[in-house]
Amino acid sequence: MSVELRNRLFEQLDQLVLIDPHTHISALDPSSHTLADILGYHYYTELSHSAGMPKDRIEEEGISPKEKVGRLIENLGPITNTIQYSWFIEMAQKLLGFEGDSVDSSNWEALYDSAEAKMSADDWTETVFRESRLESVFLTNDFDDPLEGFDTSRYIPCLRTDDLVFHLTNPRTKVRLFEATDVDVCDVATAREAIGKLFTHFTSKNAKACAISLPPSFAPVHISDARAETALSNVLAKGEEADEADQRAVSNFIFWTLAENCRTHNLPFDLMIGVNRKVFPAGVFQGQDLYDSRVSLIQYKDLLNAFPDVTFPISVLASVTNQELVSYSWIFPNVVANGHWWYSNTPTYIQQDCAARLEAIPRTKQIGYYSDMYKMEFALPKFAMYKRVLAKVLAENFVIDRNWSEEAAVELGTQLLRGNVETIFHVG
Amino acid sequence: MSVELRNRLFEQLDQLVLIDPHTHISALDPSSHTLADILGYHYYTELSHSAGMPKDRIEEEGISPKEKVGRLIENLGPITNTIQYSWFIEMAQKLLGFEGDSVDSSNWEALYDSAEAKMSADDWTETVFRESRLESVFLTNDFDDPLEGFDTSRYIPCLRTDDLVFHLTNPRTKVRLFEATDVDVCDVATAREAIGKLFTHFTSKNAKACAISLPPSFAPVHISDARAETALSNVLAKGEEADEADQRAVSNFIFWTLAENCRTHNLPFDLMIGVNRKVFPAGVFQGQDLYDSRVSLIQYKDLLNAFPDVTFPISVLASVTNQELVSYSWIFPNVVANGHWWYSNTPTYIQQDCAARLEAIPRTKQIGYYSDMYKMEFALPKFAMYKRVLAKVLAENFVIDRNWSEEAAVELGTQLLRGNVETIFHVG
Amino acid sequence: MSVELRNRLFEQLDQLVLIDPHTHISALDPSSHTLADILGYHYYTELSHSAGMPKDRIEEEGISPKEKVGRLIENLGPITNTIQYSWFIEMAQKLLGFEGDSVDSSNWEALYDSAEAKMSADDWTETVFRESRLESVFLTNDFDDPLEGFDTSRYIPCLRTDDLVFHLTNPRTKVRLFEATDVDVCDVATAREAIGKLFTHFTSKNAKACAISLPPSFAPVHISDARAETALSNVLAKGEEADEADQRAVSNFIFWTLAENCRTHNLPFDLMIGVNRKVFPAGVFQGQDLYDSRVSLIQYKDLLNAFPDVTFPISVLASVTNQELVSYSWIFPNVVANGHWWYSNTPTYIQQDCAARLEAIPRTKQIGYYSDMYKMEFALPKFAMYKRVLAKVLAENFVIDRNWSEEAAVELGTQLLRGNVETIFHVG
Repeated sequence: MSVELRNRLFEQLDQLVLIDPHTHISALDPSSHTLADILGYHYYTELSHSAGMPKDRIEEEGISPKEKVGRLIENLGPITNTIQYSWFIEMAQKLLGFEGDSVDSSNWEALYDSAEAKMSADDWTETVFRESRLESVFLTNDFDDPLEGFDTSRYIPCLRTDDLVFHLTNPRTKVRLFEATDVDVCDVATAREAIGKLFTHFTSKNAKACAISLPPSFAPVHISDARAETALSNVLAKGEEADEADQRAVSNFIFWTLAENCRTHNLPFDLMIGVNRKVFPAGVFQGQDLYDSRVSLIQYKDLLNAFPDVTFPISVLASVTNQELVSYSWIFPNVVANGHWWYSNTPTYIQQDCAARLEAIPRTKQIGYYSDMYKMEFALPKFAMYKRVLAKVLAENFVIDRNWSEEAAVELGTQLLRGNVETIFHVG
Repeated sequence: MSVELRNRLFEQLDQLVLIDPHTHISALDPSSHTLADILGYHYYTELSHSAGMPKDRIEEEGISPKEKVGRLIENLGPITNTIQYSWFIEMAQKLLGFEGDSVDSSNWEALYDSAEAKMSADDWTETVFRESRLESVFLTNDFDDPLEGFDTSRYIPCLRTDDLVFHLTNPRTKVRLFEATDVDVCDVATAREAIGKLFTHFTSKNAKACAISLPPSFAPVHISDARAETALSNVLAKGEEADEADQRAVSNFIFWTLAENCRTHNLPFDLMIGVNRKVFPAGVFQGQDLYDSRVSLIQYKDLLNAFPDVTFPISVLASVTNQELVSYSWIFPNVVANGHWWYSNTPTYIQQDCAARLEAIPRTKQIGYYSDMYKMEFALPKFAMYKRVLAKVLAENFVIDRNWSEEAAVELGTQLLRGNVETIFHVG
Repeated sequence: MSVELRNRLFEQLDQLVLIDPHTHISALDPSSHTLADILGYHYYTELSHSAGMPKDRIEEEGISPKEKVGRLIENLGPITNTIQYSWFIEMAQKLLGFEGDSVDSSNWEALYDSAEAKMSADDWTETVFRESRLESVFLTNDFDDPLEGFDTSRYIPCLRTDDLVFHLTNPRTKVRLFEATDVDVCDVATAREAIGKLFTHFTSKNAKACAISLPPSFAPVHISDARAETALSNVLAKGEEADEADQRAVSNFIFWTLAENCRTHNLPFDLMIGVNRKVFPAGVFQGQDLYDSRVSLIQYKDLLNAFPDVTFPISVLASVTNQELVSYSWIFPNVVANGHWWYSNTPTYIQQDCAARLEAIPRTKQIGYYSDMYKMEFALPKFAMYKRVLAKVLAENFVIDRNWSEEAAVELGTQLLRGNVETIFHVG
């Protein structure tokens, strides 16, 4: 009974037209041109690498897209069990008309060619939006992105701020800031001015969120202007040679300034908590980051108390932090549980985490899912995975365990998938 | 099959008459007078606050109980998904004769009035005990509670000791201790004398447990008398101005002294591990506490080794600590796994935690559940939630996965729900 | 449907002939002689102790095996719920022809006698291998084990190195090293020489792995020879009186040297991460160790990066570390997820951990299970437990949730149970 029930719920949830509240789509080049754009997604390169394919085979300069795809396909055997492989197959079936269940040396070339033909159609991006039932997607924009040349109601800007908070030690960041704002950042006042201009620019271009990813060691605190002044001066002068304490003070100062601007500009501030960068430096592109799961949301206590008017949609990297996310969202009015991020974006963890959220966080304060995709073709299979898990949780934990009607369960799922994205990010 | 099976198991478990081994019931005013006592439970106020209701609307001085209930009901829409909301509905259905599935602006007033009528009956408390199939409840008594004016075999005293361990810095605590014991605590000897008198008083009044809640940073160690003497002297003199190290030493000294008295008086010492107080100071009453899940039971290693004759029923705040609780209960004869506490008291975490305990801790060393309630009406829905999860775990993990008979499964469930409360706390 | 499906999958997986990649079997005395060898397994003694049986009743010197078994059986009542008790019953049913469902004072003696008779047969070990469908087992050999007198293709040596890394402070270790290698370890060069000889000896005797268990605080780093020289000199001179920093430096130096030898000799290095020894010193033999779950694989970052050519099959003690294991195995080519260890070796944790691994780690990089047994009779029930959980996960998460064929699911299970043991350890 339970399988039929969840299929029924899934079918209804699958009809919804969605807004994807976090992606890495390039608005100027949103969809794929060949399967190389698909299989170049770090999930496939890093898993192939992990399974034994040498990095220089994967990332060899100058090989054609087709050659690259051929090499990767030959090495997908060890990852056919992964959910990421299933994304690829489902995408190929639903968007490219592929009729098989697996792709290997016997059939990849035909798929490659037919994919290239389909993807070269003028309306391919439009087709993907339609087939994926997507209305719009949030971007991840560098702070110096001009945000020009695209429809910002379909490709919704989001100000990504990792560089500002963590890389002011890099002289290039200061130059980019100057180019973006005409402000030469040399002290606290000019830093504030520059950041204010970025927010003005972004919100004038329909930006609907500010976002940042944060290492597990980060614990933001408010820094006095005097302390910030000294620290900033040292960091701008010495770059990575600056004292660690100064670097941390600057990170705190900039981070706090971002939160202030989120307040002023009424932007939610997406916190993606827990990633350590370059843990495996010999890994493939975008396949080098991992984490230390010993992180706590209590590190954000001062921030959450200081900015009651800023909404913080929070993503956590490891499922062991999910209960804290549930509890903090249940207590703090300004905390929202946001999606299932990266290493927790697999069915087993989604199921546990989603079920825990649904029974203890107000239903208005949960954003079900975002795809985090780099190319439009991944929204369909990634959201499909989530919707299947959501349907399972709604079926088992609500309809069966708590005697909810199917209608009420679908209504709750709809709110997570669509309604809350609209109300929390002021879109749709 | 599994659903019918667990319903059968639930029905049998639901017939049991229980002793609730941890509540915050006031023996002199155990049950509710209006729905304001029900909806004033921090779960409803904090979730409504979290969902956007201003604190001053919730806690406005001088509003009538009915006005308060009206305001809260109007703001329950965002929390209809939560398990806490389901407690309210189930309580209303089973105890108040409510026939709907949800309470909103259209029907709350009738419910309010009929509840008030029912609750004003002389035998309302008696009715609640009977309908909830409860025989007695453990209290949570301040150390200076006179424990008079009630039947201590129905309302079983429990000596709560947070104030002694963590708030001797507050001069008021010393005054209260004097008033309770006639001992003027000024050094180690008088502290021991006062605490000994508290235990004598409590056990003379049928107290069956000592209890304390502990922050994640607490790691009790034995302190020499000399060190305790200095530290106590400083803390009594300077209060919160005393050195942190002295405050910690005093906490350790008092805590150890409590354990010594538990040994002398043969009282289990309930440890509720992991809560950080006032993480969200702007939260509603009792809705300000959260936690840092980075805590380990290894912090209690010295204590558990030093007091082999004291039973420590341990509750952990976060499910990520549950496996440690399983393992420590499996190894240490004096550790008992106790209930599903607060932020872990939701079905998804109970199911995972309960299943893990049932397969690796001796069946004699697990206390299934306590309600933690402030008003008697909550025992019924909270225990019902637990019994449903327990029935599910017994059905799936024992009857189906391990071929247990239903009779054996019910017997195991009965031991968790009732038998172990009797043997561990020497009651019933 | 799901129960029948998983039974079908289990039946197929249960036909496989397996290699057990980690045990504590003594090659010279592999199987049991009486039930005392069975019930002397620490799981039964520690659980009985935990449930209240005094240590001196369990470990009394000079009692007969039969007396010991009688005493333990009388105290198994409180642990009939545990999965460990079910191992005992299943073993008795499948290997000893026991026909009951429980063993107690009414029937243990007959079982004891018939077990003794069966176990005294010359071909008992052979029978156990055959009935358990085991082809060979890995051992856990002290570094000074002569590895003589047994068939190393059936009893495959594994160099266990805890003593070398953590107990060079013990003068006896130096003596044992000398006796094993003819090298008098007095500095870095002789330490390297001695360790090299151990590896040569072990690999000449068909050793297929090096292994170590590690406390949660261990975070290996490379130590310069100069630093190692000083530290080693101090540790050899002062033993446990040596500075903690020196002890740590020596541990790091030896550990790194082991990894270098694993590289040279092409041996996988099993890391069993997370155990604290002697947390409960008053516990029974082998029932004193517990853990602090606050450990992270990021502590092994330097090691994993420094030895890309060494395969590290990693076991974690607590399920809260499993997601890190999944993620690190997914990213690092040289990390393999290995079995379900000790306190995580119970169905609830295996199910969650296994499911998470199967959907995100390449299928070639997961070793399903090892028994960790001390006596051959335990392979059957422990592997049976694992195979049931694996069948459940394959049924629910692959056949039902992802539409896999049963054949494909069994193929994946087979790879975890057998294929990967062969390819990762170069055996079979």
